[in-house]
Amino acid sequence: MSSPIKVGIVGATGYTGVELLRILALHPLAHIVTVCSRSEAGKPVADVFPSLRSAFANLCFDDLDPSHMLCCDVVFFATPHGVAMHYAPMLIANNIKVIDLAADFRLQNPAVFKQWYGLEHTCTDVLAASVYGLPEVNRARIANAQVVANPGCYPTTVQLALAPLINHPSGCLINPATIIVDAKSGISGAGRKAELSLNAAENMDNFKAYGIAGHRHQPEICQGLAELSNRQLDFGALVFIPHLVSMIRGMLSTIYVDLLSATDIGALQDIYSNYYQHEPFVDVLPTHINAETRNVRGSNLLNISVNCVSPLKAVIIATQDNLVKGAAGQAVQNMNIMFGIDETAGLGNIIPLYP
Amino acid sequence: MSSPIKVGIVGATGYTGVELLRILALHPLAHIVTVCSRSEAGKPVADVFPSLRSAFANLCFDDLDPSHMLCCDVVFFATPHGVAMHYAPMLIANNIKVIDLAADFRLQNPAVFKQWYGLEHTCTDVLAASVYGLPEVNRARIANAQVVANPGCYPTTVQLALAPLINHPSGCLINPATIIVDAKSGISGAGRKAELSLNAAENMDNFKAYGIAGHRHQPEICQGLAELSNRQLDFGALVFIPHLVSMIRGMLSTIYVDLLSATDIGALQDIYSNYYQHEPFVDVLPTHINAETRNVRGSNLLNISVNCVSPLKAVIIATQDNLVKGAAGQAVQNMNIMFGIDETAGLGNIIPLYP
Amino acid sequence: MSSPIKVGIVGATGYTGVELLRILALHPLAHIVTVCSRSEAGKPVADVFPSLRSAFANLCFDDLDPSHMLCCDVVFFATPHGVAMHYAPMLIANNIKVIDLAADFRLQNPAVFKQWYGLEHTCTDVLAASVYGLPEVNRARIANAQVVANPGCYPTTVQLALAPLINHPSGCLINPATIIVDAKSGISGAGRKAELSLNAAENMDNFKAYGIAGHRHQPEICQGLAELSNRQLDFGALVFIPHLVSMIRGMLSTIYVDLLSATDIGALQDIYSNYYQHEPFVDVLPTHINAETRNVRGSNLLNISVNCVSPLKAVIIATQDNLVKGAAGQAVQNMNIMFGIDETAGLGNIIPLYP
Amino acid sequence: MSSPIKVGIVGATGYTGVELLRILALHPLAHIVTVCSRSEAGKPVADVFPSLRSAFANLCFDDLDPSHMLCCDVVFFATPHGVAMHYAPMLIANNIKVIDLAADFRLQNPAVFKQWYGLEHTCTDVLAASVYGLPEVNRARIANAQVVANPGCYPTTVQLALAPLINHPSGCLINPATIIVDAKSGISGAGRKAELSLNAAENMDNFKAYGIAGHRHQPEICQGLAELSNRQLDFGALVFIPHLVSMIRGMLSTIYVDLLSATDIGALQDIYSNYYQHEPFVDVLPTHINAETRNVRGSNLLNISVNCVSPLKAVIIATQDNLVKGAAGQAVQNMNIMFGIDETAGLGNIIPLYP
Repeated sequence: MSSPIKVGIVGATGYTGVELLRILALHPLAHIVTVCSRSEAGKPVADVFPSLRSAFANLCFDDLDPSHMLCCDVVFFATPHGVAMHYAPMLIANNIKVIDLAADFRLQNPAVFKQWYGLEHTCTDVLAASVYGLPEVNRARIANAQVVANPGCYPTTVQLALAPLINHPSGCLINPATIIVDAKSGISGAGRKAELSLNAAENMDNFKAYGIAGHRHQPEICQGLAELSNRQLDFGALVFIPHLVSMIRGMLSTIYVDLLSATDIGALQDIYSNYYQHEPFVDVLPTHINAETRNVRGSNLLNISVNCVSPLKAVIIATQDNLVKGAAGQAVQNMNIMFGIDETAGLGNIIPLYP
Repeated sequence: MSSPIKVGIVGATGYTGVELLRILALHPLAHIVTVCSRSEAGKPVADVFPSLRSAFANLCFDDLDPSHMLCCDVVFFATPHGVAMHYAPMLIANNIKVIDLAADFRLQNPAVFKQWYGLEHTCTDVLAASVYGLPEVNRARIANAQVVANPGCYPTTVQLALAPLINHPSGCLINPATIIVDAKSGISGAGRKAELSLNAAENMDNFKAYGIAGHRHQPEICQGLAELSNRQLDFGALVFIPHLVSMIRGMLSTIYVDLLSATDIGALQDIYSNYYQHEPFVDVLPTHINAETRNVRGSNLLNISVNCVSPLKAVIIATQDNLVKGAAGQAVQNMNIMFGIDETAGLGNIIPLYP
Repeated sequence: MSSPIKVGIVGATGYTGVELLRILALHPLAHIVTVCSRSEAGKPVADVFPSLRSAFANLCFDDLDPSHMLCCDVVFFATPHGVAMHYAPMLIANNIKVIDLAADFRLQNPAVFKQWYGLEHTCTDVLAASVYGLPEVNRARIANAQVVANPGCYPTTVQLALAPLINHPSGCLINPATIIVDAKSGISGAGRKAELSLNAAENMDNFKAYGIAGHRHQPEICQGLAELSNRQLDFGALVFIPHLVSMIRGMLSTIYVDLLSATDIGALQDIYSNYYQHEPFVDVLPTHINAETRNVRGSNLLNISVNCVSPLKAVIIATQDNLVKGAAGQAVQNMNIMFGIDETAGLGNIIPLYP
Repeated sequence: MSSPIKVGIVGATGYTGVELLRILALHPLAHIVTVCSRSEAGKPVADVFPSLRSAFANLCFDDLDPSHMLCCDVVFFATPHGVAMHYAPMLIANNIKVIDLAADFRLQNPAVFKQWYGLEHTCTDVLAASVYGLPEVNRARIANAQVVANPGCYPTTVQLALAPLINHPSGCLINPATIIVDAKSGISGAGRKAELSLNAAENMDNFKAYGIAGHRHQPEICQGLAELSNRQLDFGALVFIPHLVSMIRGMLSTIYVDLLSATDIGALQDIYSNYYQHEPFVDVLPTHINAETRNVRGSNLLNISVNCVSPLKAVIIATQDNLVKGAAGQAVQNMNIMFGIDETAGLGNIIPLYP
């Protein structure tokens, strides 16, 4: 049996951080050695998150001090953008692996990063060596990575929904200029913070689009799809409109694409089933089952529904729990790969919570 | 001052029926003379709908007997498909106006009606003489109609969202083959009925697409857009995917279109503002305000947000309360036009309920 | 016909302020001359609250300057505690009426006010002359008041639910030492502010008690019940536990009392029906209808359900919309009484929004 | 290591049945050999419940035939009342254990059963030998039981909330005549069925009491509390009012009791902490943490908050997931005890899902 992996979590007071704790609590090989939080340092984790009382009776938040991180084999950053790149060089120098759930290492081009996040990238060499942590696409590279950029929630759905069509043995099967992504997210995706626009009275019984003028996940999606096409195609014309749903967890992306040649639903379904046949967390639903966010709630599953509305027009629907496959679960999946252990460790034992 | 309009409502036990009662209770000229329901005949309306106790202390449901309808000037049918066409000939013969909130008179081609609704149309002559009740498009014809087909909820949003582009003085500004409608509805749109799939525990904290294989509102939308183009264009390639949101009321349609010539947001906004400048219930939002369903909740308003994501790609977002502008409110608007009274009577005095 | 009442609203950026605007927009005699807000001064009201676009196209927020208030006949304070008592003396000196929706004038004893609100009362003479604005109890005194303290939301339900038993012609029918109030409020009751604990992701699909150690509405309830007993009895032993419900609007109080003599449901129902027979906004439900918050949503109605679980134990349930009868609606009702106009003006034309 | 327990589930199409499947899927020793359902026989479980696709790819519903049950070591009945007592004698004769999640064996007096459930009890000898499955109270008897009656959801909260006070070494510390239980349940407690009153549009943004005239859990609660007092006291005067909350899962009971002697919060807290110090699933919260239903969502935990509102008046608040500790989780806990394995097997590895 492998020895335990010593895990640190920086910024464990947001929803992705607490979700990491929920998942890692049951991980057979992970041992949490520190959870760092500037704002909650010294407090018991179970006081801030009473849902974790049964899992972490004695764990307390540490201050954001490098000494805590240096005891770890891997450090997860569930922090605002810009924090991970501050600590990454030190951690790498100490041979500690880094998994960043923020955006510091998602965009390969530092100029694009600066344009969308308003920050100068401070360790472009680390960025160049980092790996984009979408296991179904980059598994081999993740296995050897020192620094993994955990994908954004929306980009995870879009890339996994389109990979079978873009990365097909016969080449890309769709017209890149026609892709429309109409995405919908539960409100936990906006984070755990004091903000009027996130209030329950402002969001229950409501539905709206947001970020229409431009959303930070757009360049990440375009970069990822270009990679899927082996940098043969440009996906810059992709239209991406996110919406906010009055539910806590869940994400559904409805993706419209023009097929290059007439395809029926059977053929399309086969393309997807074959592509993902060995994947533990991507489930291509049969045609008689409809993707619904609740059917993946709390789990690391991503469900895909494939539809043809005409011979040349496909509608691909992908659902996930935005906090799990869209964030913390995928991060643990990446950790498992990086440490060469069973990729489903700590994740296969979570069944969606229905109803 | 005009004399009261004697109003009958058939099938007032669904959500559109009870919403007609809520609106007409405050209408300055409408006098409700009968509400017919086979299932609730004899019962006080206020026992079935306690929310109406202050408005209708003494009104009781009548049986579904023609004698009750014959006392009316106008009869609203808030019934399943097929009921209105059964009674319409008799009512017309007695010079009574008909407003059908179901689909009996929405599709001009009886064969298309049969294809989508599974019913043989039994009064095709009435169908031929009926008018599609979208006031912003058909106001003059509605004024002279004996029978009005109240539009479906989704079709109302799509037609009003695209009318300024399709029915433009310079001709249609968009490519009809590119339209994608990603629509979202609150759950009251599914009706008031005992059905497992509508249960709260099945729908709260959930999001899903439905009707992907084909939704009855699709042919109605295509027919309506063709009319807007003066039957010059075919909109049969339009893609329409409805989704169900865990909220009670509200509908938002996100509509993607390819513009025929490069247009900026200012020009687009002008097209819409001009088109609807005299409309009391269509509100083209300025660019700094984002359409949200809650901002029209309970009112007869339809809000439109106009966006350009590239010079040739517009994203039009329309919101309405599915039970008001999408059903009962629009029906009252039609009644007002048919009787030559103030079009806003009974509707202008409803302000959206926020929060 | 009466001349318009010139109305000012101070602090119109919270939920009770915007609700005042929604109601007064349709009031036949109220004319809004100023809405003051320090934070939003200069902005169009309709930009901050797009739900009001159809009602207030041109109204802008004024700064919090006395000059604006001095143009009014009445000023509503929908502000934090402590603001109204700052401006009240100046307004009274100018013969302008004051309706405070905060707590400045609710507690007659300044020491009790200080104990619960942490503020020294700065105008105890105004306090002594102010009237507690519960119309069903204090109508005559409100008519002559210069300053009205609009009751808290919880206290409104409890006082109206118990008035028929405490203020009975035969004297108080219940044992004051036995009253237990288990109250539940929708989340808009917590106000419109940036606070983590109010976030949608923290409140949807959740239920909790709060304020168990002591809630500011407790002394107000006790004071009000003592008044109802003509100061004959002490209600200090009353137990009051509020709970937070994952809904936007609505309040339900379940109140348990020991009756002094055996009573059956028929007799109890009669006591309530007789007590409220002439009240326009208190509706004693018949036994076959169950009080639910949705049946009063958006309206100024308070519903009461009367139950006997044993001959000596009654359970009284009261429901209201916390923002209307529990705040803004009751404030308008008070205004109507203070100005000698129809008490239902602007309120009778709002029917609950169902579903 | 123990050999696997062969498990059957009868009626696995309701929420408690599907929850049993979710929990048992990860149980280290349970092997599901049959899930019986008259309505879904022959269908894959994962088609009816897509949330279980990852857990039960190949399991199909069996018909409701005794032959399937006879292969089991234990059969859970997640059925309507009356089904378990039909099959129990046959199963007992074959030495198969029975755990009934319905009410057939909850009430020890067959006449009381008939009064509340309208059914004649058909195996009173089995009833006499059955054990009420509240582990924290009856652990030893459950270990030897052939038939276990799994408690109702409300009774679980009330008995566990009051056990430390009623079953105290010094005798009962409270006045039985003063107990008031104001209970609130999420909507999944009403079951998975087609019923208008359960619709989302009827329940979202709503709150109501129900069952005021009498709820079937009342006699079960009174019986259980009497047992806790060693049949010394009568709890028939207990007042129990359930309410329905617009959330999927979760139950909170606010319980008001008169203490027989003055007690402070420290002493009360000690009584509870001591009583439950060795219990794996009952968590007495420290005074600085407030019980909220979300903090136990999906888990088998029951949280208790203890409060003194005066020296002689305590308010005990208990929260649980109504489908887990209130139903399926407790049933698995009972199974573990009946088979002499670790009581937390399959349950300790479920951490509440927050947010």
